[in-house]
Amino acid sequence: MRLSDIAAKIDCRMVADSDIEIERIAGIDEAGPGDLTFVSNRRYVGRIKTTRASAIILAEDLAEVPIPSLRTSNPYLAFARALELFYQPPAPTPGIHRTAVISEGVEIGPNPCIGAFAVVGARCTLGRNVVLYPHAVVYPGAIIGDDCIIHSHVVVREHCRLGARVIIQNGAVIGSDGFGFAPLENGSYYKICQTGRVLLEDDVEIGANTTIDRAAVGDTIIRRGAKLDNLVQIGHGSQVGEDSVLAAQVGLAGSTKLGKNVRAGGQAGFAGHLEVGDNAVITAQSATSHDVAPGAIISGSPAIDNSVWLRAITAFARLPALVRRIRDLEKQVEQLRKSGT
Amino acid sequence: MRLSDIAAKIDCRMVADSDIEIERIAGIDEAGPGDLTFVSNRRYVGRIKTTRASAIILAEDLAEVPIPSLRTSNPYLAFARALELFYQPPAPTPGIHRTAVISEGVEIGPNPCIGAFAVVGARCTLGRNVVLYPHAVVYPGAIIGDDCIIHSHVVVREHCRLGARVIIQNGAVIGSDGFGFAPLENGSYYKICQTGRVLLEDDVEIGANTTIDRAAVGDTIIRRGAKLDNLVQIGHGSQVGEDSVLAAQVGLAGSTKLGKNVRAGGQAGFAGHLEVGDNAVITAQSATSHDVAPGAIISGSPAIDNSVWLRAITAFARLPALVRRIRDLEKQVEQLRKSGT
Amino acid sequence: MRLSDIAAKIDCRMVADSDIEIERIAGIDEAGPGDLTFVSNRRYVGRIKTTRASAIILAEDLAEVPIPSLRTSNPYLAFARALELFYQPPAPTPGIHRTAVISEGVEIGPNPCIGAFAVVGARCTLGRNVVLYPHAVVYPGAIIGDDCIIHSHVVVREHCRLGARVIIQNGAVIGSDGFGFAPLENGSYYKICQTGRVLLEDDVEIGANTTIDRAAVGDTIIRRGAKLDNLVQIGHGSQVGEDSVLAAQVGLAGSTKLGKNVRAGGQAGFAGHLEVGDNAVITAQSATSHDVAPGAIISGSPAIDNSVWLRAITAFARLPALVRRIRDLEKQVEQLRKSGT
Repeated sequence: MRLSDIAAKIDCRMVADSDIEIERIAGIDEAGPGDLTFVSNRRYVGRIKTTRASAIILAEDLAEVPIPSLRTSNPYLAFARALELFYQPPAPTPGIHRTAVISEGVEIGPNPCIGAFAVVGARCTLGRNVVLYPHAVVYPGAIIGDDCIIHSHVVVREHCRLGARVIIQNGAVIGSDGFGFAPLENGSYYKICQTGRVLLEDDVEIGANTTIDRAAVGDTIIRRGAKLDNLVQIGHGSQVGEDSVLAAQVGLAGSTKLGKNVRAGGQAGFAGHLEVGDNAVITAQSATSHDVAPGAIISGSPAIDNSVWLRAITAFARLPALVRRIRDLEKQVEQLRKSGT
Repeated sequence: MRLSDIAAKIDCRMVADSDIEIERIAGIDEAGPGDLTFVSNRRYVGRIKTTRASAIILAEDLAEVPIPSLRTSNPYLAFARALELFYQPPAPTPGIHRTAVISEGVEIGPNPCIGAFAVVGARCTLGRNVVLYPHAVVYPGAIIGDDCIIHSHVVVREHCRLGARVIIQNGAVIGSDGFGFAPLENGSYYKICQTGRVLLEDDVEIGANTTIDRAAVGDTIIRRGAKLDNLVQIGHGSQVGEDSVLAAQVGLAGSTKLGKNVRAGGQAGFAGHLEVGDNAVITAQSATSHDVAPGAIISGSPAIDNSVWLRAITAFARLPALVRRIRDLEKQVEQLRKSGT
Repeated sequence: MRLSDIAAKIDCRMVADSDIEIERIAGIDEAGPGDLTFVSNRRYVGRIKTTRASAIILAEDLAEVPIPSLRTSNPYLAFARALELFYQPPAPTPGIHRTAVISEGVEIGPNPCIGAFAVVGARCTLGRNVVLYPHAVVYPGAIIGDDCIIHSHVVVREHCRLGARVIIQNGAVIGSDGFGFAPLENGSYYKICQTGRVLLEDDVEIGANTTIDRAAVGDTIIRRGAKLDNLVQIGHGSQVGEDSVLAAQVGLAGSTKLGKNVRAGGQAGFAGHLEVGDNAVITAQSATSHDVAPGAIISGSPAIDNSVWLRAITAFARLPALVRRIRDLEKQVEQLRKSGT
């Protein structure tokens, strides 16, 4: 595809002596002749000099570069759109596969793609353009919004509700029973019926093998635009705010509410019954059992203010030396005391 | 349902001026007119004054409250039983679905519910009232006890054994191969055949996408009444004691034995070949590579006594200040030494 | 089986007064009369005196023992091979099950075992002796090498490639979409099409419910002989080197490259865009956001040199006492200053 055609389609301004043919999109280190690459993170600006790419997508305000460039205010978005010009994943097969089991009373909107061995329980509703890949299972009474994409081996449990354009990667479980048990006098537990629903609002994406539990009462809610990576655990009755981003293996215990635009690094954990303010950040492998103020950046286990933590962990590595210094001080003070008497 | 009827059915004593109609069970903050709520945790007693619920389940020994109450020695259990009066999950379809594949030599007890595309391997035995939701897979030679409930996309591997009333949430894997490899001289590994079984005793519940490995020799055992949350990893040959409770994303390496009533917080980890005593507690995101005494409460990574850890992490956050104090002391001591000469 | 026959088949030298009949292979603590056991870890040599086993596999250079022994330079390997003499897992059913859905244009090598409800997408290639257990799903365009074993509920996504003898335990997801989103001005995110592939080279084993993401551009690669335990997360564009071993619940963010023979303990984490050298070790529940030198052993979160960390965590547990010692020093120094004036 001509670079000028790409520029037009992804709304970029072309800066080039001559138009060239682009064959592929590639990362800046892997790119070679015929490739279009990009820099969105300013840390990688230095690599522009050494890339073998034939052209590059760049921010408007970056200096001139020796190769043809496509200029835009959002290079990462332009890269994403350029990718779509060169690649589309295999389209799911239109229609309802002959082996799919659709229960009675199911309503299905126009243009479904329902794959082999998909199961849709009684009284479910599927919007228009819904894709259920092979082996997707929807329990009775669930509602799947327009344009949702449900990958193979996903389970959507009874009465759960998905908004529009929700994407669920393989193996994720939406609406498994919350971990609720009433202790009995003999030390054993009585299972508490989990009557709540899981609600995934519009434009949510759920990663592979992630699990989101239903609650005994009330709903577990993932709000509009939130993105959850793989192997994330969301406990019963928790809420994840709009446009929040949870990296892989993050865990939320029950009844914790994350605000908007909260970001959690990989393997981070939240105890139950917390309030986490808008725009808060918890870094990877950190954990908090306290509420988090809006905009706070916290780290550690238990998590504290990130800037304090950074200094504390630096000191931590020097603890053996600190112990020696204290011991030396004690000796010197003892000597001083003796010599003073 | 009349409050008096609920009281009778869940074995509570009603304290009310007049009988009222209850429409729903709800949490204390969400409850409104027509709702029955509960307080089992004394931390929430203060909220009784502000709840809009029409009635409340309470401990016998709590003071009088301004709304009708149902009194019992175990309010959390009473709440659980009240929930069942108002909600039942959709019943699985009785019988064996026409698409299920049941191999030769399988014995199935009375009243099965075997869903679409379920697969039961050769020589398996299923007790009475067993529920296999659609897409449950049982490998050859497994035994599933009476009244077990196996959700969609669960796998029970060859020769594993489930007692009675075991519940397995979606996507859990029972009996995957243990992580056992013999190192060869050239740095590669030889896979060790995993011949052991996984045994889940009566009344065990396993969370969504949890994995429990079989061992090379000997059994991996989850004992009576133990509850495992989602995304938990149980390594080959480990044992979890009766009524133990493991929160989400907990990991046990191989050959570790947890006693009875052990409790592990989310994301906690146990190294291999450990003995953990009855009633021990490891708090969230902690990890131990040492045996744990019965009744111990441990925290941190590596975990130490919880009360020591609480003081140590408080000091940790003040490490930068401690470093300054040591530096000050060193200066002062140096001055004292100089002035003393 | 006669001990002498076992010795011949697993290439050991028999040291025994008389040949005996062996009925079972067992661990050293569980073994009883008729059992053959083994010691490969020198920590367990002391238990040879107390084992009730009838015979034992041992290193050539260990001293004489009171029971018959099989001597070899690699006792753990000999144990693995002995196990295979006594146990074979149930063989998968040969052929292609009548319910399997094989799309057009699929090439299948000789001697397949394709189980019930397996789905193979368009234009896939399967080598010889490939085993797809029931409910395995292969998206279009994937390539599965000779002698691969794919367990139930595994998904291999579009265009992914598996070498020879790859084993994938149940529920693992190979090639789910990487967690890539371009931030928009309004705070929401634009999903980036993930065009890369996941490549699993020869002799790789992937644990149950592990997830390996595809990248926006370029491949995610697990190199020859690497072993990944259960519930591991491999982010988009990362690479795991030859013969590397990742324990359960380990997480790699995106674009991180592990060298050869890297070992990661359970629940360890690697941030994105890192280089980890050959033979590096990160211990359980540790995490690094820095490159790791070849052969380094690191611990902690954030991880530092293991020997430094060991001393630092010892000091950490004594922090409350250190604080008291500093306070005492301050008082004494204050007194000395006063008395000096």
